[in-house]
Amino acid sequence: QERTRSRLKAGIDAPARTRDGHSVGLWGNIASPHDASGVLDAGGTGVGLFRTEFLFMGRTTPPDEEEQFQAYREALTALAPFPVTIRTLDAGGDKEVPYVKGLVGEEANPFLGLRALRVCLQHPDLFRTQLRALVRASAHGNLRIMLPLVSSLWEVRQARTLLEEVRAECRDQGNPTAERIPLGIMVEVPSAAILADRLAREVDFFSVGTNDLIQYTLAVDRQNPRLLSWYDPFHPAVLRLLALTAQGARAAGVEVGMCGEMAGDRLALPLLVALGYDDLSMSSARIPWVKETLLRLDRPSCQALWEEIQGMESGSAIRDRLAAFQETTGE
Amino acid sequence: QERTRSRLKAGIDAPARTRDGHSVGLWGNIASPHDASGVLDAGGTGVGLFRTEFLFMGRTTPPDEEEQFQAYREALTALAPFPVTIRTLDAGGDKEVPYVKGLVGEEANPFLGLRALRVCLQHPDLFRTQLRALVRASAHGNLRIMLPLVSSLWEVRQARTLLEEVRAECRDQGNPTAERIPLGIMVEVPSAAILADRLAREVDFFSVGTNDLIQYTLAVDRQNPRLLSWYDPFHPAVLRLLALTAQGARAAGVEVGMCGEMAGDRLALPLLVALGYDDLSMSSARIPWVKETLLRLDRPSCQALWEEIQGMESGSAIRDRLAAFQETTGE
Ligand SMILES: [Mg+2]
Ligand SMILES: [Mg+2]
Repeated sequence: QERTRSRLKAGIDAPARTRDGHSVGLWGNIASPHDASGVLDAGGTGVGLFRTEFLFMGRTTPPDEEEQFQAYREALTALAPFPVTIRTLDAGGDKEVPYVKGLVGEEANPFLGLRALRVCLQHPDLFRTQLRALVRASAHGNLRIMLPLVSSLWEVRQARTLLEEVRAECRDQGNPTAERIPLGIMVEVPSAAILADRLAREVDFFSVGTNDLIQYTLAVDRQNPRLLSWYDPFHPAVLRLLALTAQGARAAGVEVGMCGEMAGDRLALPLLVALGYDDLSMSSARIPWVKETLLRLDRPSCQALWEEIQGMESGSAIRDRLAAFQETTGE
Repeated sequence: QERTRSRLKAGIDAPARTRDGHSVGLWGNIASPHDASGVLDAGGTGVGLFRTEFLFMGRTTPPDEEEQFQAYREALTALAPFPVTIRTLDAGGDKEVPYVKGLVGEEANPFLGLRALRVCLQHPDLFRTQLRALVRASAHGNLRIMLPLVSSLWEVRQARTLLEEVRAECRDQGNPTAERIPLGIMVEVPSAAILADRLAREVDFFSVGTNDLIQYTLAVDRQNPRLLSWYDPFHPAVLRLLALTAQGARAAGVEVGMCGEMAGDRLALPLLVALGYDDLSMSSARIPWVKETLLRLDRPSCQALWEEIQGMESGSAIRDRLAAFQETTGE
């Protein structure tokens, strides 16, 4: 216990890489600018997911550009020069934002409904305000913009067009902005993983959202307590999509990360190292634990493990194999 | 008009194959034994989907074995020697069966909920009664049993074990049964298409359910009127899954069919011919129309079209290309 604690502490400042020198960014997920210091304290070197819903919750009108700008700038400033990946509004589904609820109405299946980027593309004024705030904030740190729930190329193109318009507009109005603002997408709809090779040519980075990706790939509501036997993060089909996504990114020279729950799961880590995930974003509290595991891995063993696991038939067999592997790398 | 009608009529008895002799089974979907004659009148040579929900609807207790047996036997007898693919209970989702509703309860996202095969595996008594009725009916025609909403290998294995138990039991009790009862699955969850190569080794046939497959692959409720821009049967990711499914089946020497709406869409037909779909099951009224198109196709042109379409980026571009192709094959 004592030994673990001191080892975790010692790891905070150590570079996040395997024994054989393969680096993986260990980043934090945050839900407000106040969480930024927690990421740094835990040794995180960036934010892979800044959820912007907090700005929209518990109120009946959306926050204006200025209010959003202040929040984004605060996070960017606190974390500079580390990258801060801000996700555009991800309302709907299980995240109820009263203002958006009014636009969307009642839905029989909210997880398969008008949510996230879809709402933003259908209500460009709402989206434009957020993009303006983001572009203005970009001058104050290392901003990356991330689009949730992308299922098709046209959505990325529409969003990029809007972003370019907003950037030109902000510059014309004399606002300082970053030279370059990477635009990426969450890979959390099966079609995005299946088309990763195509989508990679349209974006600057991928970040896999495992929670949604798993639920759609398996057609299982992850919050339905009756379906625990069906919801399976290590399902072979899910792992194939994780591999496809990484391969698509790699082929296009695009960064690939992960910001779902699996990113903070030490059992999954050897697979993610094998597949070449560049950064993993998790709740800050998980960072030291994941780093502690990372420091003990070497990539060739991870790759051999992945080869073996590709031949396995069930999520539970794969989980068992990962647990056994974890024991051999422990001490 | 007159000419089309007489051509359709003339086609009823013609074999369903392309100009160059590639056969495709054109089958009917039915929802009760009374629909059997409609399939035959339309020139259908089998049933690719017999929905058994009608037996369970509008009542508070499930039908007993005898009632089910009578209904299945009636359909099998009417259509013999043609194959009749009977789908096991597909309750839940948008198909409300009062008795099953009581077992499942309220769900936030019924399409991602406890439905179809999941209900049957969780309530083996319910499932066993249906399987017994099916096994007994098998003596009276050419029965194929089809499992809906399969997402994993273990589900197929559990169902097969139960089916084998029931067969042994029925035989021990002196019931005549068919020598062989093919067991197949609907491919309608993304994970099933992604793992088609594995699943093909466990089953006797595949039948793609395009309606569900599309909605899960794209994370779009097909009944949500606000998502019309997102629901896209010709989405490149959907087509990749159709190809993966056919390849997986082919490699294992297993038949692959389709029973979703796309099976009756003449625009899609050249692609399905190219991919080697063995049988297409649709509402009986569509059969003559689809056959009329089939008779004018030749497989090499369809395969060339598929090569071309694989390079295309959007469902709407693909749809346009298919429409143009249809014009060149018309007269
Ligand atoms: Mg999500
Ligand atoms: Mg279905």
